[in-house]
Amino acid sequence: MKKVAIIMGSTSDLPVMQEAVDILKEFKIEVEVDIVSAHRTPEKLFDYGKNAHTRGISVIIAGAGGAAHLPGMIASLSPLPVIGVPVKSSNSIDGWDSILSILQMPGGVPVATVALNGAKNAGILAAQIIGSSDKAVLDRIIAYKEGLKMKVEEGAKNLKK
Amino acid sequence: MKKVAIIMGSTSDLPVMQEAVDILKEFKIEVEVDIVSAHRTPEKLFDYGKNAHTRGISVIIAGAGGAAHLPGMIASLSPLPVIGVPVKSSNSIDGWDSILSILQMPGGVPVATVALNGAKNAGILAAQIIGSSDKAVLDRIIAYKEGLKMKVEEGAKNLKK
Amino acid sequence: MKKVAIIMGSTSDLPVMQEAVDILKEFKIEVEVDIVSAHRTPEKLFDYGKNAHTRGISVIIAGAGGAAHLPGMIASLSPLPVIGVPVKSSNSIDGWDSILSILQMPGGVPVATVALNGAKNAGILAAQIIGSSDKAVLDRIIAYKEGLKMKVEEGAKNLKK
Amino acid sequence: MKKVAIIMGSTSDLPVMQEAVDILKEFKIEVEVDIVSAHRTPEKLFDYGKNAHTRGISVIIAGAGGAAHLPGMIASLSPLPVIGVPVKSSNSIDGWDSILSILQMPGGVPVATVALNGAKNAGILAAQIIGSSDKAVLDRIIAYKEGLKMKVEEGAKNLKK
Amino acid sequence: MKKVAIIMGSTSDLPVMQEAVDILKEFKIEVEVDIVSAHRTPEKLFDYGKNAHTRGISVIIAGAGGAAHLPGMIASLSPLPVIGVPVKSSNSIDGWDSILSILQMPGGVPVATVALNGAKNAGILAAQIIGSSDKAVLDRIIAYKEGLKMKVEEGAKNLKK
Amino acid sequence: MKKVAIIMGSTSDLPVMQEAVDILKEFKIEVEVDIVSAHRTPEKLFDYGKNAHTRGISVIIAGAGGAAHLPGMIASLSPLPVIGVPVKSSNSIDGWDSILSILQMPGGVPVATVALNGAKNAGILAAQIIGSSDKAVLDRIIAYKEGLKMKVEEGAKNLKK
Amino acid sequence: MKKVAIIMGSTSDLPVMQEAVDILKEFKIEVEVDIVSAHRTPEKLFDYGKNAHTRGISVIIAGAGGAAHLPGMIASLSPLPVIGVPVKSSNSIDGWDSILSILQMPGGVPVATVALNGAKNAGILAAQIIGSSDKAVLDRIIAYKEGLKMKVEEGAKNLKK
Amino acid sequence: MKKVAIIMGSTSDLPVMQEAVDILKEFKIEVEVDIVSAHRTPEKLFDYGKNAHTRGISVIIAGAGGAAHLPGMIASLSPLPVIGVPVKSSNSIDGWDSILSILQMPGGVPVATVALNGAKNAGILAAQIIGSSDKAVLDRIIAYKEGLKMKVEEGAKNLKK
Repeated sequence: MKKVAIIMGSTSDLPVMQEAVDILKEFKIEVEVDIVSAHRTPEKLFDYGKNAHTRGISVIIAGAGGAAHLPGMIASLSPLPVIGVPVKSSNSIDGWDSILSILQMPGGVPVATVALNGAKNAGILAAQIIGSSDKAVLDRIIAYKEGLKMKVEEGAKNLKK
Repeated sequence: MKKVAIIMGSTSDLPVMQEAVDILKEFKIEVEVDIVSAHRTPEKLFDYGKNAHTRGISVIIAGAGGAAHLPGMIASLSPLPVIGVPVKSSNSIDGWDSILSILQMPGGVPVATVALNGAKNAGILAAQIIGSSDKAVLDRIIAYKEGLKMKVEEGAKNLKK
Repeated sequence: MKKVAIIMGSTSDLPVMQEAVDILKEFKIEVEVDIVSAHRTPEKLFDYGKNAHTRGISVIIAGAGGAAHLPGMIASLSPLPVIGVPVKSSNSIDGWDSILSILQMPGGVPVATVALNGAKNAGILAAQIIGSSDKAVLDRIIAYKEGLKMKVEEGAKNLKK
Repeated sequence: MKKVAIIMGSTSDLPVMQEAVDILKEFKIEVEVDIVSAHRTPEKLFDYGKNAHTRGISVIIAGAGGAAHLPGMIASLSPLPVIGVPVKSSNSIDGWDSILSILQMPGGVPVATVALNGAKNAGILAAQIIGSSDKAVLDRIIAYKEGLKMKVEEGAKNLKK
Repeated sequence: MKKVAIIMGSTSDLPVMQEAVDILKEFKIEVEVDIVSAHRTPEKLFDYGKNAHTRGISVIIAGAGGAAHLPGMIASLSPLPVIGVPVKSSNSIDGWDSILSILQMPGGVPVATVALNGAKNAGILAAQIIGSSDKAVLDRIIAYKEGLKMKVEEGAKNLKK
Repeated sequence: MKKVAIIMGSTSDLPVMQEAVDILKEFKIEVEVDIVSAHRTPEKLFDYGKNAHTRGISVIIAGAGGAAHLPGMIASLSPLPVIGVPVKSSNSIDGWDSILSILQMPGGVPVATVALNGAKNAGILAAQIIGSSDKAVLDRIIAYKEGLKMKVEEGAKNLKK
Repeated sequence: MKKVAIIMGSTSDLPVMQEAVDILKEFKIEVEVDIVSAHRTPEKLFDYGKNAHTRGISVIIAGAGGAAHLPGMIASLSPLPVIGVPVKSSNSIDGWDSILSILQMPGGVPVATVALNGAKNAGILAAQIIGSSDKAVLDRIIAYKEGLKMKVEEGAKNLKK
Repeated sequence: MKKVAIIMGSTSDLPVMQEAVDILKEFKIEVEVDIVSAHRTPEKLFDYGKNAHTRGISVIIAGAGGAAHLPGMIASLSPLPVIGVPVKSSNSIDGWDSILSILQMPGGVPVATVALNGAKNAGILAAQIIGSSDKAVLDRIIAYKEGLKMKVEEGAKNLKK
């Protein structure tokens, strides 16, 4: 079965990144979570990036704040699709540094960037990537989207009362 | 076989978006290209988004400039992974509008955003998504990354001469 | 009688958007309020935009935050004047994403954008649009502006005491 | 018959603002064009703003660059709907100053802001405002939107050849 | 004797603008304070700007937030030096709108802009302007600067203890 | 007679700063021009700032680009009013660095900042400062403003032809 | 023995700058701390900058907020390496002014800029500069980096429990 | 003798980075130049960062554009002082991405950032770092600063003619 790896630069990113874990569990997709710091554990970064695809990982979600190099460096090392989550950490300038450090990758090494603190969307995107070759997961995404619609419609109904 | 759909809001986006077509052909992945304008052809947008996954498309790449709603609206309509390419069009404010309109999607509806004018990376990301469940494509990505390395090393050698 | 439609992407936008409702009631203009999410209820968006002008709506006010596509998509679907309210929602980058996603519409599909969280001004603008062909409403606007003046003058008097 | 006033701060804004004139003529709406500088002809600004609604004007389009005060000051003086066009003039900082000076009006005095250099959209918006109480103009807008669609479809067809 | 006029767009600007009043009193310069709203009391704005120099005012300090047109419009109407204070009001986007609306005046109509919320500096600058032709005031400024120095030196001494 | 000092950080700022010289000559105000670099000639900066008010200077205009410290440092050293001109030099980030380095002075040490590359307005402001205590100069400013008005009116007339 | 000077524009910068003091003590490097204000104590600035290298200082760390001229002016006066710390003070615009005023120095006069409020990193950088010619200090940096790694690994272990 | 390593992400950065080479040669400091791409040659990055301090390098200068990870990753791997040069490459958003990706490093891993395209200043800073423990180099820096002063004075003289 396909597995999504969720890594982050620091335990302080966990409150944001937990949303990716939760939504993937909702989609019944297996996840593994780890702390990998591009700047403080470069050897681990290296091993992680080089080997993820050889041990059953299909997609990597990487979250980091400030000068956020983790998603881009993992994308440099791994042939897998890497989803980057810019985290608005305490040392960030309103999140602009995190966003630009993750988004503006050079030609050849993409990172699939989601919104600031958008870990939930990172999880959904990972599910969609798996769903693009797995009918069962695709169906769960279709159902999830149906659920979103129903919640809005309920809100609209309550408003009119 | 898996296919990538590449759509854009206007023919004026084609010079940028062509890079996605070219790199996907390099990876031997089938592509279809179309013009779909969120603002001028909303019915086509609707049909396209609703049906793409039913006719063999695995990944959608959508490029647009200014208040770029195409990628997000396609992501709203389709369960497939959608890659957004912010295009620095003539009516854009240095690209900031395109980037933020594509990146900052609300929870529930992700768009995998790449760098400004990063259509080449959008193509590579689409290939990585297919490669995450297709060993042959994954191998081509590994080879491609090896090629990137060799070109840099060559540049380094020439520099030393 | 003319009616203004006020729609928003999420119930969480209601505290901001309520100001548009209130000021329009002050101008004795009928309003209808609804939740329409571009990203979660695209079918409703479609129906709403396509039909608003056929059922007595004169102006549409649409508020949304983050990658705010609701105002632009409604403007794409409806021939009516659409007023966009950028909402500084929790997932917004200081409001810049909301502003640029609404303001920077391509040639052919305008959105009349007001200030960040400027729902009150959206309501006044809707009244002015109706007032441009309705003498009674125009007179109420002239009176309203007179009221603004008097409140400032009162403030000035209190200051001098 | 309803008339749209198009004013701008300087003759140097004319190349941008001409697009508003042209599109309104396409919609068969009468326009008058004038130079009114908030900073250099404040008396004219005053007279213009105070009297426009008394001499048959329905909508005012005001374009200006840099610290662009013309749209907001006209909106202060007139009860009519005022559309502001931020112009990227030579003394502007990438257009940000023009946009923010026009968009961020205080509560009570709205300006309907369009995209940077978006004079064409200002014209269309003026037509939509008139169209909201004039069936013939509304029909021309519906036809115009149909034309936009056809042009995109033609582009799509050419692309596939 | 020379007098400085301190005006602001709204009583809500008073907490910021009071610092200009206080420092000018410290310099023994007469001040008058008033509320003049460019957008809500345009006639008062007009009279104020046209006549200030005829009734003993030497310098005008104008504070405003958001799309801040008061300083520039007063500068348009008066031949006196006008000092603009960008106020970070609640409807401002981190103060950028206030700054750019005041700073980026077109050629011919300067506003002497100070820092965001820099009303104290506006007061000092007004004193310096008067001091440039009034030896007694100039001496007070020299003494004030000496005082600034002494306070820093005291802080430095305390630090070393 | 009163004199205005115009200084700049580098001869490369001269094309921008020349406009201040020209307009002051038009107002028949004596100017002296010099190159004073905060970063390369700190001793000259020191002497210049300390002594300007003792040798007949009434106002100092200082222009600089990038991390522009000249205006602020001169304001630190001199009790005279200092006008800062942010210059969009080649090493500047769209002028933002020049603007913020000059504008955002701490409490106690104001710099009267004008628009990016706004040397002409710096000259007019210097004239207004002198005019605030010199009736002849004030009259020239009133006449100058009259001239601005006439030029706009001429443009308006030509437009109507 | 080598010594690092830590200076700041105001005692209000001390909470941020203390981190530089602390980390340098951890590296057993001697520090001296002082308040030097570019704008309020220019003479002290001058003496400090001119003489630091003659009295045993090897590196200068200078922190300041807003229009932060202290680091650049010290770099202008001293031949020593100067590390600049942009401080997000209360009068700063989200720190952008501090960053750009320190970073964007003209050719010839570098300031080694660290992250917003990054005083700790300024201290480490000073240690690295000393370590580049002092084996004992270099070894302490290597050990420090080893410690960073261990802390991350511990966090990763706890996460997995 | 001490040596400075100058590395960059791509040969396209060479025109900018050459200035660092040239100025260091002027200071008679030995340099080695190489291409090391964080994203395309991660293994070389790793070896380079890990070993630079063991083979006689004292300072590393690293230049890169866009999502510029090279300086930060080298700083992660090496105990030496690392100077980062943000390069305004073609794929950069006005240089903001390069600046923020290099500057905003997390606590523990500093990069000494210089101005956008400021490779010359990076070279001078490297010389100052060496000069902080090498009297001969320090003297060359003092002489260089004297030279800067003389060039400005010459410019000032020419201006007065």
